[in-house]
Amino acid sequence: MSIFDTDLEQGAHNSVALTPLSLIARTAHVYPDAVAIRYGDQTTSWGETFDRCLRLADGLRRAGVGKNDTVAVLAPNTPAAVEVAFGVPGCGAVLNMINTRLDPEAVAFILDHGEAKVFMVDAGLAEVARAALAIASVKPLVIDIEDAQVGAVPGVGSQTYNGLIATGDASAGFTLPGDEWDAISLNYTSGTTGNPKGVVYHHRGAYLNALGNGLEWALPRHPVYLWTLPLFHCNGWCFPWTLAAYAGENICLRAPEGSAILDAIDRHSVTHMSGAPIVLNMVTTEAEGRGHHFAEPLRMTTAGAAPPAAVLARAAAIGFDVTHVYGLTEVYGPAAVCAWKPEWDALPAAEQSRIKARQGVNYAVLEEMSVRNPDTLALVPRDGVTMGEIMFRGNLVMKGYLKNAQASKQAFAGGHFHSGDLAVWHEDGYVEIKDRSKDIIISGGENISSIEVEGALYQHPAVGAAAVVAAPDEKWGETPWAFVELAAGAEVTALELIEHCRGLLAHFKCPRHVVFGELPKTSTGKIQKFELREVAREG
Amino acid sequence: MSIFDTDLEQGAHNSVALTPLSLIARTAHVYPDAVAIRYGDQTTSWGETFDRCLRLADGLRRAGVGKNDTVAVLAPNTPAAVEVAFGVPGCGAVLNMINTRLDPEAVAFILDHGEAKVFMVDAGLAEVARAALAIASVKPLVIDIEDAQVGAVPGVGSQTYNGLIATGDASAGFTLPGDEWDAISLNYTSGTTGNPKGVVYHHRGAYLNALGNGLEWALPRHPVYLWTLPLFHCNGWCFPWTLAAYAGENICLRAPEGSAILDAIDRHSVTHMSGAPIVLNMVTTEAEGRGHHFAEPLRMTTAGAAPPAAVLARAAAIGFDVTHVYGLTEVYGPAAVCAWKPEWDALPAAEQSRIKARQGVNYAVLEEMSVRNPDTLALVPRDGVTMGEIMFRGNLVMKGYLKNAQASKQAFAGGHFHSGDLAVWHEDGYVEIKDRSKDIIISGGENISSIEVEGALYQHPAVGAAAVVAAPDEKWGETPWAFVELAAGAEVTALELIEHCRGLLAHFKCPRHVVFGELPKTSTGKIQKFELREVAREG
Repeated sequence: MSIFDTDLEQGAHNSVALTPLSLIARTAHVYPDAVAIRYGDQTTSWGETFDRCLRLADGLRRAGVGKNDTVAVLAPNTPAAVEVAFGVPGCGAVLNMINTRLDPEAVAFILDHGEAKVFMVDAGLAEVARAALAIASVKPLVIDIEDAQVGAVPGVGSQTYNGLIATGDASAGFTLPGDEWDAISLNYTSGTTGNPKGVVYHHRGAYLNALGNGLEWALPRHPVYLWTLPLFHCNGWCFPWTLAAYAGENICLRAPEGSAILDAIDRHSVTHMSGAPIVLNMVTTEAEGRGHHFAEPLRMTTAGAAPPAAVLARAAAIGFDVTHVYGLTEVYGPAAVCAWKPEWDALPAAEQSRIKARQGVNYAVLEEMSVRNPDTLALVPRDGVTMGEIMFRGNLVMKGYLKNAQASKQAFAGGHFHSGDLAVWHEDGYVEIKDRSKDIIISGGENISSIEVEGALYQHPAVGAAAVVAAPDEKWGETPWAFVELAAGAEVTALELIEHCRGLLAHFKCPRHVVFGELPKTSTGKIQKFELREVAREG
Repeated sequence: MSIFDTDLEQGAHNSVALTPLSLIARTAHVYPDAVAIRYGDQTTSWGETFDRCLRLADGLRRAGVGKNDTVAVLAPNTPAAVEVAFGVPGCGAVLNMINTRLDPEAVAFILDHGEAKVFMVDAGLAEVARAALAIASVKPLVIDIEDAQVGAVPGVGSQTYNGLIATGDASAGFTLPGDEWDAISLNYTSGTTGNPKGVVYHHRGAYLNALGNGLEWALPRHPVYLWTLPLFHCNGWCFPWTLAAYAGENICLRAPEGSAILDAIDRHSVTHMSGAPIVLNMVTTEAEGRGHHFAEPLRMTTAGAAPPAAVLARAAAIGFDVTHVYGLTEVYGPAAVCAWKPEWDALPAAEQSRIKARQGVNYAVLEEMSVRNPDTLALVPRDGVTMGEIMFRGNLVMKGYLKNAQASKQAFAGGHFHSGDLAVWHEDGYVEIKDRSKDIIISGGENISSIEVEGALYQHPAVGAAAVVAAPDEKWGETPWAFVELAAGAEVTALELIEHCRGLLAHFKCPRHVVFGELPKTSTGKIQKFELREVAREG
């Protein structure tokens, strides 16, 4: 036995499980008076926020919630949506933020699949929650999150959020994870083949990505961060925890619309924000309309489809400094970044935008992002031409899919997480997506499964065959277009089909445009979507 | 069994041991052409540096060095001293940087105690290394680190450093730690009670402190960092690994003297540096002499005795932005920081300097720094008056002392690392040292054990009783003063005693001043050092 393995054991003195809960405790200790959250006219300090989170944890504890219990939350970007990132794991429970754009059926599926023990519902979303609860099998404790900005509405719960917090005792402290591998949150993917999958995050990964965001963005102390990115997307890309580490300000906004965003930027001197390219476009258009230019550069990370060169140029002109990041729910949100190099500053704008559109390189806290042959796992050459699948390996990869060992096994085949995104690897080590192997349409930052939309179309008696593909859209990035072959002798209008889909799907998922006609097929009868994509591209 | 504990196992896909070796690999991948090291007229990129570190690791491997073997290094702040931070752990070995100011006896003790298998020696230190090897029992493989700045000198080794690197194959890669708890380095304390103790660091702590330095300092990408802090102090406070994470520049300097430092700052547009207050004082004095003011603020972290208000004011006037940090070898160097608050900017200079002199709060990546009753471990009240001992708990606490289970057990009593520093806890949560429970004198950033110096004095036949205390010193922070009671009938001069000490101790440890006379003692015969400290303080 080596001298370095003798009498040098781990113990309470030198080994503590990594958890983002440590980050808020430390910031509340050092900067109790610094602003943690702004929402309308309401301001909360880190000391007060920590106190509320501790009491939330204890309130949940007193309600019988503990380790590995699921706490589902349906809320827009309000202060409560930030607090639950600490208060829920703070009692050992698992936070499940639900996409507020889902229909009641999808919400009910998630409540049931995640076995929600508690369901917290924002006042503005009581209606969809009520409908979801009517369908769901689980009977969670339902908590109403009050909001003066919504006003008094009939609640759906048995208790209010502030009431729950009032029952808690801050001195009880957080229940820290015994093992940093313990689950901290559950985030459902949009589901490419029917039902969404539940992605489980652990405390270790959440902690490391919290620091990773700061490292990649070279964050200053006390950043002022505007929430336009939904907090239900990969726990807001782990930014609630990053902001705790950097003692930053969370600027909360119920409805991220151009005018409200621009007002918030000015009012609070926002320094950083994240979101889909549509948000960048929206704010830029609004600022142009007002003839406005930011006093200081506003740093923004965008993910999803890369912003077009024209949008990037317009955004830069009003003061945006955009960083393109890339990731998936399975890797805690962004786990890759198109890390910018000083020598690129001198390039022409079009060339800069071409470089910036690439997905880039792994976060420093992620061991590896690679492009591989999906079958053999061999690395593809760095020639910018050979296609392969983007794969991830390291501490920012999820625990796995909840109650879905088969999907997990498939996703982790050969010791790498398979992203499903097809890409090339450039000579300089940067990755660029060329196609998606899964049928996903990214519209306004939301993933839409073409298969799910096709399924809805097929439920209409007049539809003989259907294929849904992405059409480029200046505002939304992409929108779904449906190509429909009618059943023999049947008749239906585009409007009727869209209305039919709205009865089955969230509105944002429904086809924006329907094209009737015979679908191009291979000799074996497989629909040739690439031809349809060309039609959609031409508009 | 919970659904969150089922089919969600760790594996190669989602779990990688934390190690700073990942940080250099990623930076070399993303920024291969960015400058990693500058030394005189020599510049090395991160791509080249990574390649050299890989080959160093493989060269060591081929020389039979592997997991848990100790590689001792005696070198000033040269490029090799940076490279070994990656190349040595890169073959699984443990890096032991040795203080270059030690005498041959102390070096020999460390080589033997650490069981050095390899000993790398800078050309300028061949003489002390040869003397140490003549005393030591171990017979390590000795490697000469050539340096054009030193010129051709007779080597002490059987091989050269660049020759070793030439034998390595970069494609062999690093040997990554199987467990992040594996040892990465060994750092000897100055030893307050005779022999120094070997502090063992692990990969997890080194990784976390590397990120922690960046977080506390809110480092930008590509910082330009000047090495005035010795790389043998706690592995340069983990900064070699921080600079790898941030793709920064290591500006190396053999001899950190005022003029050379100021030249390097100007020549390379240095943005950050660290060191003892004496370095701050030296550079400030030099800059004042040249009528010089930095173009951009130069951010500096200082540790050890807090810089006096007058020095801070002068330093600020020439463009220094000073952050006071605190730590010990046992906590990876700085593990606490006097985190500055914007509201303090408006205070008068004297008040600012009083606030800045405090040791502050725990690093965000360290779980806890507290002030406790050393016996009961009860927290002291935050009243700024009650004294207690500073204690640490968390991932930045060492594995323990090498081959010294008893010292480790004592240091970790009750689940906290006991620093030995006595402090008060202010109402705002900031800690301030009021005294050191161990008899340490900090002179020019080096710790001197008063007990060791007293031991040397007692070896002189004319000394009846001796006590050594710290005297404040404008240049060195503190210097050792000796108070001596002569043996009956004996005679000796101060100069003779100092010469006697120089024969036994490194020069910086020898008394600067000797006072003869009867020593104040308690009724039980214990020397009352506090009285002597008062004499020394009055000068």
